[in-house]
Amino acid sequence: MAYFDNAATTYPKPECVYKNMDEFYRSAGANAGRGNYQLALSAGEMIAETRSLIQELLHCPAKQVIFEPNATIALNLIIQGIILDGATNVYISPFEHNAVTRTLHHFEKNGSIKVHLLKVSDDLQYDLERIRYQFDEVKPDFVIVSHASNVIGLIAPVEKIFNLAKKYGAVTLVDMAQTAGLVDLNVGLSTIDFAVFAGHKTLYGPTGISGFVMNPEKKFQPVIFGGTGFESANQDMPNSLPQRYEMGTLNISGISGLNAALKWIKETTIEKIWDKEQEHRNQLLDLLAQYPFVRIVGNSKERRYVGIVSILIEGVSSDSAGPIFDRCNVAVRTGLQCAPLAHKFIGTHPSGTIRFSVNYFTSDKDFDELKQALDYIEMEL
Amino acid sequence: MAYFDNAATTYPKPECVYKNMDEFYRSAGANAGRGNYQLALSAGEMIAETRSLIQELLHCPAKQVIFEPNATIALNLIIQGIILDGATNVYISPFEHNAVTRTLHHFEKNGSIKVHLLKVSDDLQYDLERIRYQFDEVKPDFVIVSHASNVIGLIAPVEKIFNLAKKYGAVTLVDMAQTAGLVDLNVGLSTIDFAVFAGHKTLYGPTGISGFVMNPEKKFQPVIFGGTGFESANQDMPNSLPQRYEMGTLNISGISGLNAALKWIKETTIEKIWDKEQEHRNQLLDLLAQYPFVRIVGNSKERRYVGIVSILIEGVSSDSAGPIFDRCNVAVRTGLQCAPLAHKFIGTHPSGTIRFSVNYFTSDKDFDELKQALDYIEMEL
Repeated sequence: MAYFDNAATTYPKPECVYKNMDEFYRSAGANAGRGNYQLALSAGEMIAETRSLIQELLHCPAKQVIFEPNATIALNLIIQGIILDGATNVYISPFEHNAVTRTLHHFEKNGSIKVHLLKVSDDLQYDLERIRYQFDEVKPDFVIVSHASNVIGLIAPVEKIFNLAKKYGAVTLVDMAQTAGLVDLNVGLSTIDFAVFAGHKTLYGPTGISGFVMNPEKKFQPVIFGGTGFESANQDMPNSLPQRYEMGTLNISGISGLNAALKWIKETTIEKIWDKEQEHRNQLLDLLAQYPFVRIVGNSKERRYVGIVSILIEGVSSDSAGPIFDRCNVAVRTGLQCAPLAHKFIGTHPSGTIRFSVNYFTSDKDFDELKQALDYIEMEL
Repeated sequence: MAYFDNAATTYPKPECVYKNMDEFYRSAGANAGRGNYQLALSAGEMIAETRSLIQELLHCPAKQVIFEPNATIALNLIIQGIILDGATNVYISPFEHNAVTRTLHHFEKNGSIKVHLLKVSDDLQYDLERIRYQFDEVKPDFVIVSHASNVIGLIAPVEKIFNLAKKYGAVTLVDMAQTAGLVDLNVGLSTIDFAVFAGHKTLYGPTGISGFVMNPEKKFQPVIFGGTGFESANQDMPNSLPQRYEMGTLNISGISGLNAALKWIKETTIEKIWDKEQEHRNQLLDLLAQYPFVRIVGNSKERRYVGIVSILIEGVSSDSAGPIFDRCNVAVRTGLQCAPLAHKFIGTHPSGTIRFSVNYFTSDKDFDELKQALDYIEMEL
């Protein structure tokens, strides 16, 4: 099996991730932050260390790390909370995932917000001049940008967009599901209020653990309520962080895997992981370029990309190409990849694209198998 | 370490749970239900099998199993959804957890609901006569009952209460966080609309995976929005189940652990697990009875209990007793256990109780260590 679906979840994980999950959960799988006893404390210490590792990776020692089960829930809590607190004009990139657009659609439908698309030029450049003009026209309350598109991999100039947004007093949120641990971003910047991460994607951790980093002064109203093992008599959610947004039992097993993954990233270095993934992306682009029936979409030499490449195959509808690659033992992701807005922007809606995504571990064997698959498709066409 | 905090999370887990989590995630940790490829399908098959195992355990083949990251989120989705759909008069047991009461408090504060407590007599009997009278007085729209109290372990006669509630047309929700896999309940009954389970408690699975079972005709409006790998072009959440309520990447690693746990329960049988836990509960009660400074609270010989026992120690405030037991190497849970309402009912608010909870695996060694701890406390008092 050649695995080219790393944008869905990185696979395999570094060996230390599997190992630590198993060993930690066997030896210290008690309920963290609830009991007082030693087992619970050592889980608590591991969780605290994991928060520090995230702060270090994202250069944000003064920001608060909040754990959530997945990036979708993290995005919902922030987006719904900020809207309930009064944000009306919401600007998003044209590449947002359904976790963002479906949530916004709910509020747009009931008339409480208006969604605007940040201007991106046809050659895929965020047009800061025109964005400034947009902001002058309708003042932004809330600006949400995917750091990298999960469809074409394009990296957004988040710092510049948020610099501008902050001049208008907007709340800012960057979705780093496809970039945390891969694209070095200074989340410590005062222009970044919220940054969401997905543990099981570019952070190389397991499923079931994600979260966000926040400016502790930007508390919003809670959307999900429950036990926090803290101020239990209070029937409102506590005001303190992280408890205000961490409801229910934390995924200790998942956090122990993420802990190991973060240490692996630190040891390997984000630069080396980036370089390696870029190398694999170039290898992929070179291979795809050999096949005249392949059309790469949303790719421009002047822009920066993570290791995600979307293509169309002449004469094959993208949403039905999955089984063909599957027969060839190549794992890809076809269709809309939960991001119909992005496909509308690049002109591939509604059948979508065939998406390949590499990671640090993508091997020559993977590329050989992909080559065989493409040779086979060429013959069949 | 003597572990008496199984109501927080069962520990240890059956060996097969650790083993399957590790092996499955190593060999098939791709993103289930998103890609078409073989790895993803085998994760998909494992997830489908896990749903069947839950249906079988809870005797509800016609009900839909929905996975959520934890029971708190499961409860929030259902409770918020049913209230947003118009439920006004909500009846709850006096033993509900903050996952229920804090959620309801949010809506009570803004005036959209009224919360009523189901009548329970001083000797801890659900008073069906008086409950009928309550329902006659104010018609119930929504009835929520913890199948077993997480503070004193008391089991509620859910079938009878819901039988009555259904005569008034109420929506019914049973919180089985402390009972699924332990107390045999026929969730297939038409009087039960929703049943919430917590994977890492009495189901002996890992943290990070829980969910609920629902009558598929009782769809409520979504509360969290996001990608479902399904009908991606649709900006509303899909109407189909389980997709409507399963947003974002499922915790494959967690589900593989739960899968093994459910097979372990099936093999061991729920009867044997119940008998064993009752045996350990009796052993615990017998031991505690030897110490005159121990006062067991909320215990009545005529009622049924799971393996949870709350006590007070003369002259020691419960919320400060944790460190004492910790020094003695005994893991217990002190204070309010995220259920202040229950403590108000049994008269132990606000300092709470010292809670012991046993499980199938509680050993003579655990009891020996607890005995030593109690001997030490007796000396110190």
